[in-house]
Amino acid sequence: MRNEFHDTLDGLVVDLADMCGRAAAMMTSATAALLSADVYRADALGADLADLRAIGIAVHDRAYHLLARQAPVARDLRTVVAALHIGADADRMGGLASHVARVATRRHPVPAVPGEVVDLFTEMGSTAVQLAAAAGAAVRSGDAAQAERVCAGDQLINDLHQQMFARLAGPHWRHGPMVAADVALLGRFYERFADHAVEIARRVYFQATGRHLGVQPAQSI
Amino acid sequence: MRNEFHDTLDGLVVDLADMCGRAAAMMTSATAALLSADVYRADALGADLADLRAIGIAVHDRAYHLLARQAPVARDLRTVVAALHIGADADRMGGLASHVARVATRRHPVPAVPGEVVDLFTEMGSTAVQLAAAAGAAVRSGDAAQAERVCAGDQLINDLHQQMFARLAGPHWRHGPMVAADVALLGRFYERFADHAVEIARRVYFQATGRHLGVQPAQSI
Repeated sequence: MRNEFHDTLDGLVVDLADMCGRAAAMMTSATAALLSADVYRADALGADLADLRAIGIAVHDRAYHLLARQAPVARDLRTVVAALHIGADADRMGGLASHVARVATRRHPVPAVPGEVVDLFTEMGSTAVQLAAAAGAAVRSGDAAQAERVCAGDQLINDLHQQMFARLAGPHWRHGPMVAADVALLGRFYERFADHAVEIARRVYFQATGRHLGVQPAQSI
Repeated sequence: MRNEFHDTLDGLVVDLADMCGRAAAMMTSATAALLSADVYRADALGADLADLRAIGIAVHDRAYHLLARQAPVARDLRTVVAALHIGADADRMGGLASHVARVATRRHPVPAVPGEVVDLFTEMGSTAVQLAAAAGAAVRSGDAAQAERVCAGDQLINDLHQQMFARLAGPHWRHGPMVAADVALLGRFYERFADHAVEIARRVYFQATGRHLGVQPAQSI
């Protein structure tokens, strides 16, 4: 019975890592669609999101059944609870990649990102994708040190986000309010995508150690 | 033993409803601070957020211990799992209220919201607060019909959000890129705040019925 339980648990972990990989691939596509004003590529993300959501619902239901039928404890319980949260985070990351794609579609055929900030968005895209892939690897390995490194990588996106605002506020900005609004929202989508990758890594850390990363021991379990 | 369990469960529900109430109060304060450029009121939200987070961590840890020690099933299990998610949503709502307050502080002494959209932000604020309060009431009662009504209320925020973009894109808009960026981000914060209130209501619905709201029976538990 315990073997069947652990097989199911292993399957859940594989699916969660797969969800992170899919979210990363979606953000790669969304960024490419955004920077090349490629509306076909942007539109294709709708089907990707539906697939991701279906996996997320299946993961949720299986995690739920494990709790109901197996009453896991200690690290196994932490893994199942983490699965519930990680599935929700990865789903949200897919949603944010779709938001990026939707901005590309909304402004088509004009590129939503003006030339002055293309470099920043290129870098935000690749950093966000790397964080998602690293979060997926941490989910797969369940390794606390690997999870901790993902959390440290968040600062890069925040720095890029700050630079974006500096350019928006700078003397060379020549675009209208809708472009400014889009750029601000896009920056926010990338930042939140990265936040969720970090949140996933924090869940892995908790699952591995029983401690909340960056929280004093008194508040840990 | 089951009585002690249900007392703890009741206590969790009370704390979750309290978290929703605190998030609603924070958004009331944040909107007032935003519209009156009141930096002192905005700054006070830092302490409110710390309090909300502390309750959230305590709720998470208690829900976790219930799973580990009592192995609940059926509706009790759904309540505990919902508690884990609802705590995270309410925490996020407090974070979003803080973001609104931070925009007010960043632009002080200039009001972050120009006169042309004050009416929309006033209405977005009150709608968001009402949704949070209604989500809290649904958490407290655990009533599926009440939860379902909260979900329907989300459309109002989306409509206001659309109107905000229409004014930004309209011929009468006379403000610079940073104002447009702030207005777009603020609209997003209110929309996400409302989304989390709806998500909480969806969790209550699932907890009460065992079905995901708006999902076909095949995907339900």
